[in-house]
Amino acid sequence: MIIIPKRDYDASQLENLIGWLKGRGLEVHISKGENMTVIGLIGDTSKVDIDLIRSLDVVEDVKRIQEPFKNANRKFHPQDTVVHIGGVKIGGGNFQFIAGPCSVESESQIIGIAKAVKAAGAKLLRGGAFKPRTSPYAFQGLRGEGIRLLLEAKRETGLPIVTEIMDISQLPLFEEVDVLQVGARNMQNFELLKELGKTKKPILLKRGMSSTLQELVMSAEYIMAGGNENVILCERGIRTFETSTRNTLDLCAIPVLKSMTHLPVVIDPSHATGYAKYVKPMSLAAAAAGADGLIVEVHNDPQHALCDGQQSITPEAFASLAENVEKILPFAAK
Amino acid sequence: MIIIPKRDYDASQLENLIGWLKGRGLEVHISKGENMTVIGLIGDTSKVDIDLIRSLDVVEDVKRIQEPFKNANRKFHPQDTVVHIGGVKIGGGNFQFIAGPCSVESESQIIGIAKAVKAAGAKLLRGGAFKPRTSPYAFQGLRGEGIRLLLEAKRETGLPIVTEIMDISQLPLFEEVDVLQVGARNMQNFELLKELGKTKKPILLKRGMSSTLQELVMSAEYIMAGGNENVILCERGIRTFETSTRNTLDLCAIPVLKSMTHLPVVIDPSHATGYAKYVKPMSLAAAAAGADGLIVEVHNDPQHALCDGQQSITPEAFASLAENVEKILPFAAK
Amino acid sequence: MIIIPKRDYDASQLENLIGWLKGRGLEVHISKGENMTVIGLIGDTSKVDIDLIRSLDVVEDVKRIQEPFKNANRKFHPQDTVVHIGGVKIGGGNFQFIAGPCSVESESQIIGIAKAVKAAGAKLLRGGAFKPRTSPYAFQGLRGEGIRLLLEAKRETGLPIVTEIMDISQLPLFEEVDVLQVGARNMQNFELLKELGKTKKPILLKRGMSSTLQELVMSAEYIMAGGNENVILCERGIRTFETSTRNTLDLCAIPVLKSMTHLPVVIDPSHATGYAKYVKPMSLAAAAAGADGLIVEVHNDPQHALCDGQQSITPEAFASLAENVEKILPFAAK
Amino acid sequence: MIIIPKRDYDASQLENLIGWLKGRGLEVHISKGENMTVIGLIGDTSKVDIDLIRSLDVVEDVKRIQEPFKNANRKFHPQDTVVHIGGVKIGGGNFQFIAGPCSVESESQIIGIAKAVKAAGAKLLRGGAFKPRTSPYAFQGLRGEGIRLLLEAKRETGLPIVTEIMDISQLPLFEEVDVLQVGARNMQNFELLKELGKTKKPILLKRGMSSTLQELVMSAEYIMAGGNENVILCERGIRTFETSTRNTLDLCAIPVLKSMTHLPVVIDPSHATGYAKYVKPMSLAAAAAGADGLIVEVHNDPQHALCDGQQSITPEAFASLAENVEKILPFAAK
Repeated sequence: MIIIPKRDYDASQLENLIGWLKGRGLEVHISKGENMTVIGLIGDTSKVDIDLIRSLDVVEDVKRIQEPFKNANRKFHPQDTVVHIGGVKIGGGNFQFIAGPCSVESESQIIGIAKAVKAAGAKLLRGGAFKPRTSPYAFQGLRGEGIRLLLEAKRETGLPIVTEIMDISQLPLFEEVDVLQVGARNMQNFELLKELGKTKKPILLKRGMSSTLQELVMSAEYIMAGGNENVILCERGIRTFETSTRNTLDLCAIPVLKSMTHLPVVIDPSHATGYAKYVKPMSLAAAAAGADGLIVEVHNDPQHALCDGQQSITPEAFASLAENVEKILPFAAK
Repeated sequence: MIIIPKRDYDASQLENLIGWLKGRGLEVHISKGENMTVIGLIGDTSKVDIDLIRSLDVVEDVKRIQEPFKNANRKFHPQDTVVHIGGVKIGGGNFQFIAGPCSVESESQIIGIAKAVKAAGAKLLRGGAFKPRTSPYAFQGLRGEGIRLLLEAKRETGLPIVTEIMDISQLPLFEEVDVLQVGARNMQNFELLKELGKTKKPILLKRGMSSTLQELVMSAEYIMAGGNENVILCERGIRTFETSTRNTLDLCAIPVLKSMTHLPVVIDPSHATGYAKYVKPMSLAAAAAGADGLIVEVHNDPQHALCDGQQSITPEAFASLAENVEKILPFAAK
Repeated sequence: MIIIPKRDYDASQLENLIGWLKGRGLEVHISKGENMTVIGLIGDTSKVDIDLIRSLDVVEDVKRIQEPFKNANRKFHPQDTVVHIGGVKIGGGNFQFIAGPCSVESESQIIGIAKAVKAAGAKLLRGGAFKPRTSPYAFQGLRGEGIRLLLEAKRETGLPIVTEIMDISQLPLFEEVDVLQVGARNMQNFELLKELGKTKKPILLKRGMSSTLQELVMSAEYIMAGGNENVILCERGIRTFETSTRNTLDLCAIPVLKSMTHLPVVIDPSHATGYAKYVKPMSLAAAAAGADGLIVEVHNDPQHALCDGQQSITPEAFASLAENVEKILPFAAK
Repeated sequence: MIIIPKRDYDASQLENLIGWLKGRGLEVHISKGENMTVIGLIGDTSKVDIDLIRSLDVVEDVKRIQEPFKNANRKFHPQDTVVHIGGVKIGGGNFQFIAGPCSVESESQIIGIAKAVKAAGAKLLRGGAFKPRTSPYAFQGLRGEGIRLLLEAKRETGLPIVTEIMDISQLPLFEEVDVLQVGARNMQNFELLKELGKTKKPILLKRGMSSTLQELVMSAEYIMAGGNENVILCERGIRTFETSTRNTLDLCAIPVLKSMTHLPVVIDPSHATGYAKYVKPMSLAAAAAGADGLIVEVHNDPQHALCDGQQSITPEAFASLAENVEKILPFAAK
């Protein structure tokens, strides 16, 4: 961290600041030029509050050189993390398809789709039980019953399940769930993140729709700081001014996140684009860019899905998508 | 709601759709032209899922004419809502200052600031006990102890208190709190909103940093649908590409929200701008634009505030701000 | 186009509106329900000013069903447009690499790079002569001399050249230039677009950094309305809140533009990401998503490039990129 | 400017860099710590290309301490600039109303509106002759004839006129125009800016719809670097995700620009909001925040305006707005 004091700083205030910084275990290097003084800090500055420093009267500007995250940082953990889910590996060269309906609707629906996506190559089943909906009048999911049906589908097919948790109080219901998904709207629900850090469950952490990639990594850091290293990052589109797609899929998030962190990165082309017809091209692009997996909405009857039918593809379309992705993977960016 | 079927729609599919709509209690008007068919729906369409309709094969496009919210809608409730907090009224011509530190730090700090802001004209005391912070290593607030200190300050000064709740599990600690604040990051924490809808407590609902005004109103609708009508809306800046301020304060939110809803609208110039020097001009602007109140960060020692010192103003600056705002209020937009 | 009059509309005002619409050659269908009236317009509504209609007292809302563009519209021109540049084809299954330096700096530089990118598979040479720079103090390009050097490189290698025009007054200098590039900042320089519509030169039209895809197509429509059908669309990243890349590359623009229009779509991964290390993964992704070409910044000495060295790749890196892209193309989205 | 070399930098590369910097007249301070080296540059760094420095192999990071603009910088010109237009002053405590129609439509229209806005307190007449429109099929303005009519209105009323120039080639037509407006879409039309820098005409420079405030100031710097100091900055709304207004009016631009520069700042509430009903509240807010003027669309018959009728207000509404603004001005932010 570099601190630049104001030109006409008060010497005793600067002394106070330096003393405070040393007290936090940092090595402090001061360089006084004729016209400019620069203070360099060496040590673990991830725990220094940059906004607090910037607010001081004596400070003109501050700049972080090191990233403010540690557990998730590739610099301190150069090799890729591989997350193990039952027998399924994701990350470190292991690409996986996660597929299933937006919402669990009935036993026959979820089991039917689970069998279909398994046949097409999916290794994990997704399905919403608790559904975050903008309107209080929209379908809110089958909730506990939805989880029961997902576990039924898991017993039938052997596919581990991925489903969203919306509140700490729901945690007991997720005991047999394999991967807990944190939705975009909860990416900065810090109380929930802390609680998930205490479990050892794999967490699929979705990027908030207006969160920077660094903020996404900081939220992963919340979970990891609690002791849970099993975090999978997920880009699902960000909010921009463009209206021809539901969100704007930021595929450059893949190489950026991979240079910042060692965690697996998966892409959700369904929520990102909002239209079934764009799911395949964006899936192929994600694979080519080096993603570790895809999470795709598949519905046996998209026309009558209780939510997000517009962006769901059929099992047949998913099988074709998976086949094409497999052909691209050998040539994908590393 | 207007539905436009595809040009070459399948007649039986359209029949199915019309039957389904009628089954939901809607009046259906069909207009067939030579080249175009238009279906108009009359009735309470706030409970129809527009995305579901749009996803149907037979549908080319859908357009909402009515807003998807009801309890918060000014059309059905033309007069302004006045929220009562202890003896303090906000809305319907009652303008109030809510002031206090970003974080509660100690008994002497919070009581000192409470007295100072009261003297300067504030009618409500704000202060953070549970603090949402991007980094797990930043100060997370005094939590339960912070609430205890706020209540102490309330006893000393008589000022009702406003403080943020971050999770349902914290609710028992908020029993004596006067106004529960929902932060920007939790604006779409729907489980929390539903729970708050069951209380009768006034709720200060902050706009998410990338939420549209309609989404803000839909989140208010979550609370109101549960039976709690005491919602105060708060604009606190949105995320844009501009970097010279922390966020971009959207002051047009004031007249827009007032035309959409009957709820009071307050402005937070401190978080919106991120810099103490911009708090006063934006406060004056907010007052002129017709806001019902301001929520301002005031700290007796901004240089040493444990969080957000950069954007806090001193009690003296707040007193001057309040004085200026009072002069503008008589000429403010209605 | 659908017009919804206000509930309590003035009958004579509505008559006036209907008369005016009929006068513009549109067929008008009126459907009066008990509670709602809907007016449907059939015909060429691309020339109706939707904002004007919306501003009328009698109108509650208006909705376009048809797109406001015609020449660029795939509905009226289902097959892909192939743009011919010298002997080089782009679009309709013809994928091309356009490569070269950000700025032309010297004869030896541009000829050296031209030879290198040709050897690596590029079929078109890019290079900036007129450079739009945020600062008046930054290098503004060699201007006329830069074009002379590009033409020199063309003579040496046979590669057609692509370079940016910034103002109508520069047009005479572009007589021998093969493809005229319109930069992001000029996408809505309508006077320039009209002038380019009068030439028959292929135009590479870059998306403005905060332009919607429909606005990009409307700008293409300006050129096409003048009689020039040789327009190539280029996505080069949009401005968002994300700061880890220079812009956010919107790869879903590829399938969206291809469904809206019949024009070729190329991707500029260099300006989009701003970092050399992200150019390859985004190039592979663009190819997989179905792009018709890539425009890539290549510099023999990125460390000493006079502009944008940070995002330029070496000829060797470009050769490796091109080789990988070729492997992905057979499996790309159609 | 602060340069931080990579930890394991190559010493001879660093020597080269330092030599190059000294060659540009900069004083170079090097501070070597055990673990970190910091290079501080003193002097006029506004002409150093920060991206070029950042792209060097030897450089880890660079940070500007000084702003990259000089002529527009308040640090070097502490007192407010007052722009003189005929006998009208703007800036430095002189607040002015600029009013008139979006487009000039006819002699009687422009003269009628000119008289009405003059009576209501406007000191400058605005009106569009050359109109930038998204669609090639929308009304493009009366062009040269429009300017002739504006000059007619000036003769009738004595009001100096403000109108938009879209291309260098139009300059001869603007000889008698008092203030040349550069529209949002041309804010980074650098060739036009350079040309305007050669005139002495007052320029009203509108912020691009996705331009940062620093970029706006850099565009002013283009004009000022050419020798023309008469620049008025104008905030007219930026593009965000919010859809309830046409753009998002960034009123904090007023104090931010005033701390960065010494130039007058005016606000355009009509384009910013897009709706007549929001023009008054935003005008009051702009005045309270310390703006130096307002540019407002006024039309005698908004229902039949050829463009942007939706956002125009009547002369009566303008008179009421102006009266209210005058009452707020004495209490506005300084």
